[in-house]
Amino acid sequence: MVTKLGAPMLSDVVDALCEEESYQAVYHMPEHDRPMPSLEALGELVERLRAVIFPGYFGDSEIRPETMRYHIGGSLDIAYRLLVEQISRGHCFFCSTDDRTCIDCEVEAKRVAGEFMSKLPQIRKLLATDVQAAYVGDPASKSPGETIFCYPSITTLTHHRIAHELYKLKVDLIPRIIGEMAHSKTGIDIHPGAQIGEHFFIDHGTGTVIGETCIIGRNVRLYQGVTLGAKSFPQDDSGTLIKGIARHPIVEDDVIVYSGATILGRVTIGQGSVIGGNVWITRSVEAGERLLQNKCSL
Amino acid sequence: MVTKLGAPMLSDVVDALCEEESYQAVYHMPEHDRPMPSLEALGELVERLRAVIFPGYFGDSEIRPETMRYHIGGSLDIAYRLLVEQISRGHCFFCSTDDRTCIDCEVEAKRVAGEFMSKLPQIRKLLATDVQAAYVGDPASKSPGETIFCYPSITTLTHHRIAHELYKLKVDLIPRIIGEMAHSKTGIDIHPGAQIGEHFFIDHGTGTVIGETCIIGRNVRLYQGVTLGAKSFPQDDSGTLIKGIARHPIVEDDVIVYSGATILGRVTIGQGSVIGGNVWITRSVEAGERLLQNKCSL
Amino acid sequence: MVTKLGAPMLSDVVDALCEEESYQAVYHMPEHDRPMPSLEALGELVERLRAVIFPGYFGDSEIRPETMRYHIGGSLDIAYRLLVEQISRGHCFFCSTDDRTCIDCEVEAKRVAGEFMSKLPQIRKLLATDVQAAYVGDPASKSPGETIFCYPSITTLTHHRIAHELYKLKVDLIPRIIGEMAHSKTGIDIHPGAQIGEHFFIDHGTGTVIGETCIIGRNVRLYQGVTLGAKSFPQDDSGTLIKGIARHPIVEDDVIVYSGATILGRVTIGQGSVIGGNVWITRSVEAGERLLQNKCSL
Amino acid sequence: MVTKLGAPMLSDVVDALCEEESYQAVYHMPEHDRPMPSLEALGELVERLRAVIFPGYFGDSEIRPETMRYHIGGSLDIAYRLLVEQISRGHCFFCSTDDRTCIDCEVEAKRVAGEFMSKLPQIRKLLATDVQAAYVGDPASKSPGETIFCYPSITTLTHHRIAHELYKLKVDLIPRIIGEMAHSKTGIDIHPGAQIGEHFFIDHGTGTVIGETCIIGRNVRLYQGVTLGAKSFPQDDSGTLIKGIARHPIVEDDVIVYSGATILGRVTIGQGSVIGGNVWITRSVEAGERLLQNKCSL
Amino acid sequence: MVTKLGAPMLSDVVDALCEEESYQAVYHMPEHDRPMPSLEALGELVERLRAVIFPGYFGDSEIRPETMRYHIGGSLDIAYRLLVEQISRGHCFFCSTDDRTCIDCEVEAKRVAGEFMSKLPQIRKLLATDVQAAYVGDPASKSPGETIFCYPSITTLTHHRIAHELYKLKVDLIPRIIGEMAHSKTGIDIHPGAQIGEHFFIDHGTGTVIGETCIIGRNVRLYQGVTLGAKSFPQDDSGTLIKGIARHPIVEDDVIVYSGATILGRVTIGQGSVIGGNVWITRSVEAGERLLQNKCSL
Amino acid sequence: MVTKLGAPMLSDVVDALCEEESYQAVYHMPEHDRPMPSLEALGELVERLRAVIFPGYFGDSEIRPETMRYHIGGSLDIAYRLLVEQISRGHCFFCSTDDRTCIDCEVEAKRVAGEFMSKLPQIRKLLATDVQAAYVGDPASKSPGETIFCYPSITTLTHHRIAHELYKLKVDLIPRIIGEMAHSKTGIDIHPGAQIGEHFFIDHGTGTVIGETCIIGRNVRLYQGVTLGAKSFPQDDSGTLIKGIARHPIVEDDVIVYSGATILGRVTIGQGSVIGGNVWITRSVEAGERLLQNKCSL
Repeated sequence: MVTKLGAPMLSDVVDALCEEESYQAVYHMPEHDRPMPSLEALGELVERLRAVIFPGYFGDSEIRPETMRYHIGGSLDIAYRLLVEQISRGHCFFCSTDDRTCIDCEVEAKRVAGEFMSKLPQIRKLLATDVQAAYVGDPASKSPGETIFCYPSITTLTHHRIAHELYKLKVDLIPRIIGEMAHSKTGIDIHPGAQIGEHFFIDHGTGTVIGETCIIGRNVRLYQGVTLGAKSFPQDDSGTLIKGIARHPIVEDDVIVYSGATILGRVTIGQGSVIGGNVWITRSVEAGERLLQNKCSL
Repeated sequence: MVTKLGAPMLSDVVDALCEEESYQAVYHMPEHDRPMPSLEALGELVERLRAVIFPGYFGDSEIRPETMRYHIGGSLDIAYRLLVEQISRGHCFFCSTDDRTCIDCEVEAKRVAGEFMSKLPQIRKLLATDVQAAYVGDPASKSPGETIFCYPSITTLTHHRIAHELYKLKVDLIPRIIGEMAHSKTGIDIHPGAQIGEHFFIDHGTGTVIGETCIIGRNVRLYQGVTLGAKSFPQDDSGTLIKGIARHPIVEDDVIVYSGATILGRVTIGQGSVIGGNVWITRSVEAGERLLQNKCSL
Repeated sequence: MVTKLGAPMLSDVVDALCEEESYQAVYHMPEHDRPMPSLEALGELVERLRAVIFPGYFGDSEIRPETMRYHIGGSLDIAYRLLVEQISRGHCFFCSTDDRTCIDCEVEAKRVAGEFMSKLPQIRKLLATDVQAAYVGDPASKSPGETIFCYPSITTLTHHRIAHELYKLKVDLIPRIIGEMAHSKTGIDIHPGAQIGEHFFIDHGTGTVIGETCIIGRNVRLYQGVTLGAKSFPQDDSGTLIKGIARHPIVEDDVIVYSGATILGRVTIGQGSVIGGNVWITRSVEAGERLLQNKCSL
Repeated sequence: MVTKLGAPMLSDVVDALCEEESYQAVYHMPEHDRPMPSLEALGELVERLRAVIFPGYFGDSEIRPETMRYHIGGSLDIAYRLLVEQISRGHCFFCSTDDRTCIDCEVEAKRVAGEFMSKLPQIRKLLATDVQAAYVGDPASKSPGETIFCYPSITTLTHHRIAHELYKLKVDLIPRIIGEMAHSKTGIDIHPGAQIGEHFFIDHGTGTVIGETCIIGRNVRLYQGVTLGAKSFPQDDSGTLIKGIARHPIVEDDVIVYSGATILGRVTIGQGSVIGGNVWITRSVEAGERLLQNKCSL
Repeated sequence: MVTKLGAPMLSDVVDALCEEESYQAVYHMPEHDRPMPSLEALGELVERLRAVIFPGYFGDSEIRPETMRYHIGGSLDIAYRLLVEQISRGHCFFCSTDDRTCIDCEVEAKRVAGEFMSKLPQIRKLLATDVQAAYVGDPASKSPGETIFCYPSITTLTHHRIAHELYKLKVDLIPRIIGEMAHSKTGIDIHPGAQIGEHFFIDHGTGTVIGETCIIGRNVRLYQGVTLGAKSFPQDDSGTLIKGIARHPIVEDDVIVYSGATILGRVTIGQGSVIGGNVWITRSVEAGERLLQNKCSL
Repeated sequence: MVTKLGAPMLSDVVDALCEEESYQAVYHMPEHDRPMPSLEALGELVERLRAVIFPGYFGDSEIRPETMRYHIGGSLDIAYRLLVEQISRGHCFFCSTDDRTCIDCEVEAKRVAGEFMSKLPQIRKLLATDVQAAYVGDPASKSPGETIFCYPSITTLTHHRIAHELYKLKVDLIPRIIGEMAHSKTGIDIHPGAQIGEHFFIDHGTGTVIGETCIIGRNVRLYQGVTLGAKSFPQDDSGTLIKGIARHPIVEDDVIVYSGATILGRVTIGQGSVIGGNVWITRSVEAGERLLQNKCSL
């Protein structure tokens, strides 16, 4: 008798879960036969781009200058197609038109993916400066290559610099997913909208948050637990949050922010300033200023 | 000669590791032929439940109202059986009786799994409010669906609201494992015992900790790095920690706690109050109070 | 026409990425036909060692005293070979000699892997004390076995105590990778160089950082978000960071450091002292001192 | 020097293989962005159909009458979509139009897949008779269920009866692939065009071949190494084989053909006749005739 | 509109397939919560036994005499448990009792699996003679090891000698499945009931069939397409085949049977006789006789 | 008590299996730390070569002329390295020297793999003629592409033409394994030594065997169950088979051999002759002769 007990109960639960009232707020009705973006495909996309950007470190580790064109060309061709498909899916997720063929949408996805591809040399160039920043900035690192291969800072920035280009191209949903993949892996949460200059380094990094409208200059160094966040959330007359306005800090060149510091609002942290650990700031800071822990500290 | 060097050494190490004195404190003697809970099975369980709760977002993304019963029914049937097996294993992990057949234990596991299943509509209802809270609370979010698909807050709460129902049903070990799976993925550590009301949102979330005996009201919002912890650990006469007593905060409705704040002990954070970032609190807070950063801050 | 648009663009991107100027700073030229260390193999290595250290909890959960030698012997033999290969790869990553045969290097890798293996009983012994510390130190834990199976503290310390032995044996790169694997999973970032005594426990742990030259005594307990870091980075005359000097705290026996505390520089936290949450310290602390939150706190 | 030898050679080979003259006869130019049929997807399709046809034997082996609708409904919905996609791919493989949108093609694929689905109860009914035939016809079989679970005859006929319905619906390429999957697994090569009546059994089966235009009645039994083939291949005036004409045997009800027998051409093997092993036949056989091994045999 | 067409149709098909009349002959009602035997587990079982029997060829190819006990012991312990579980499932497949606990059945499965294990040294001994026979009997083979590693004859006999021991122990279903696994891979169909002496070799082998009650002596060699089958199938009064009676040939020591020969019925092929290719025999053959192709041949 | 019964028995079996007397004839002692050839790696090798030979059919099915160099170049580079490794392992399997460094062996493996690669355009050219032969020779085929994608004849010949080139380069063991992989999949057993001319086709193919020293001309067609074998095996004075002498048929251009025919010994089947089904031949056949079934046939 025992094994059959479950069934009637199961049937009731299925009934309850299949009532429209129950599912309507949490159900995604597939439009245009296009499924949700695939985390697996996006994972492969990032891995292929990582292999293209850092040849010999990721992907085929026996790549040689003589064979580099083959491997990079093949990976890019596949990455391009993966990206076209995922851009279409991301677009479709928000799409409300009733155009069943989606042909314009595919043409657009191809155009956007192509533009993204043309940014890869620039993305690599920026990441090469980040590698240098990580090597120079961490006394425990033994070679730039070590930071490429196993530093969370480089992992996160590889995701971010890819996601940010897609964000600039107004790709839907995909940049955010790519950012969250790095967030899950490293504990560093950078919104794809954030603008980050060259030679950027985050040491350790767990818990660091960089908001959507941040602008970060060159040669900036952060530590773990740093928040570059919003101070308040303006609402419209109906009490709804106004989305998209500049609300996060501007951090100028050569700034260092130590662990646990919190900087909120559209303030400017002036060039060369140093922000101490655990400090809480909601005002702008002069260039060159050193805001260390307050006197109350022990 | 070289390749054989390893062997005698290996044999010595094996000898040392197989001495009872060496292994006794770290060895799990299998009882009743029942293996340890399976992380893989629990991962599948949560994925199936997630697909059932958010149809079209997870699992089969082409599910339609006409086919919903099939997919939800099939997933639940499998989830039910996975859960029965894992509940039995979790129970067996702590079990000390010598009843070899374990039949009562299987009957009980089926009863408990059945009760859990009947809670799923309610779990979905709560999560739907959490989705709404995430969408409303984050200016960077573009649609409720986006928060379902890629916000750590929803990932964590899906795990937690499942784990908490199992915790209430006194299931051993499994709730904790489900909680730790989310902790590893999102950096948010919610003990399955914590009671959390509807419309809950944790933005960014890395490093946030919510303790076992916390009680959190409706419409509460937390940020990253928030601790709702215990202040002290009463010991009994022998110096052993007393387990299970209420020791974590009560957070009433409509409270906001900013990043890095620490609230310790069985204190009450009154309705509608706001706790500023990096603040350290070990006392109760009045309803409506705004505890911002202390004056010493910069 | 549409599908063919991508190709010329692709070709240009490939050209740009294959110019030596573009790739030289981010390319790893394979030496001696030896590929990069394998994250997959290192993952298997750690899983096998975890199964050997905690028999019945990980790996084959039906291991019995009568069959323990088989399973432990077999796992160790495979782990030994995995380790020899990865040590060689890690060494080769930094190697600059032109000795094509690498035979000496393999002999050395075997010697080092053998020495590591002989440390396993001692590693287990230490971890058994960490298990005890987790059980005793967390009122929410129900048995020592539960902490072995699902506490981030034990996961992290298993990685660390393995990585630290490899670090002491001067193995290249591999210890750091093993440490970062735990960092990604638990949010706890312990440099493999850190010396940590027995009975160590980190509760929750997300965001906690322990630097390369830390020395931690027995019976120490940390919480989440704790930083044991460097205060400053001495540079040589050319402005380059001097690597390898002692720059992180010494934490003596029986110390507790609460969440969010930051301790920087080669200071000594004396025996039995207690460091409160969110506290910022750059000086030594007397034995038995209790540095709680400063008076400015709310 | 050694490791670099390969590269110039490789480049020459790539050049040679990328000359149009070299690849033109063996290259499939992708049309309409539609890839080749996927063997993996077709494998999953057949597995899902097998699970639907023989519930409890394949797929979820704990399916109960109360939950059967869920599992069968869910599997069919997924199978339907897999089939639509593969039918489209198969069609596209031969398609020569330049209609870029392929919308008509998708509509057609859905119609055909829907028709196929409606044949499944009939396919199951036929296979149930084959199961009975296998059980009755093999003295070594212990139950009908055993033949479902592990007899090559049932494996092959499951593939064939599916492939034959698709063949009748004029689906391109897919039926042949499904047939070859069974051929590879069992050594029995049945062309999807062959018409086979109920209660069919092939014992052992390796090497048995049944041609495209065969018509086989009810209650027929074959053994291994039997050929039901074509005798000659009429050519048109240009010497090209004429495709599609009836050229294989008609085997009436209740016939038995023993191992190694060869029957060629559009001959009729009359009802109830018995064809002996290794016999070679190119003429029709009367009903009830027993053609045993010729007198020359030993 | 198009995408929704499928659903009503699907619902009708599901209805039809879930009518008891439709499924009753092809449905396996799970008894005692015990699922069907697992092909995957049986595949692993055979791989583990193969690795144990031929150390260094299969499984871990770096096994050394010093570490052999570990690997063989570990593999056997796992194989033993896999076998216990699969024996129970196979038994349950045919079981009709209503004893819900199945405890006796598990005790029996353990006893049988234990007996099987004790036969392994003998199985290896026999297979070692088969290896020798393959090496000696095939002019194309270069070493005994090559036949172990890649000859279908050894693959098949490894399966058979395992399956035959299980058959002798009256294990249900499992021996047949193990036999069919080899049949699918090599095209050689040996019923697990067949008794085969030492030094047995089948060259090429595709299409060769050896029936359930065959008895084959020592030093016998077969080629491809050989049938050792039944001639007729005695029926009881009701017309049902009588199962289990001796109906296949006895082949004495030192016999050779060339390709395509068919030997049917309970005849005896005398010691040292040679049966020519494509020959059809239904009578006994004297010791030493040479039955070559009949005179009619070309 | 029950669960522990297994252990002492297990220990005895392990003891018996680890006695040198038991394992010596079936144990492969690893030499030079080089493991056995990997079936998985060889599977990948063949898949990559298949994708290179038939672009668009296998591997990436969206390959375009503009991207072909990338995909073919990348696949060949990886295939080359897989092949070098497997050639070395195959050589090592038979190697008896005591040169520990094996460097010469690696140099040689690279030379041989390089030579093989240079043969690929020629292999493709031959296979293109086989594709044509399959399309022309089978009335059921609808396009040459269909034969590439799913005909066993093309599968087998792809394996064989690769294996034969490796055989000519005197590579150990690997050619045989590649041949057996096709044998298992298609039931066609072609020894890698067989020389086969262009435009070769085997219809259905199961059970067909082609021996090591066969020489087959152009435009030859075989059917299933055909044997091109050896008639006798000359022995040396000690009774050992003499290995490597020419002992299989020569089949000249334009020959057809129907199903089940057996041709044995170093005979010549003259140009344009036709060999009927089930025929047994041990003598040469004149050019143009038609050897149909003998008169005794029915």
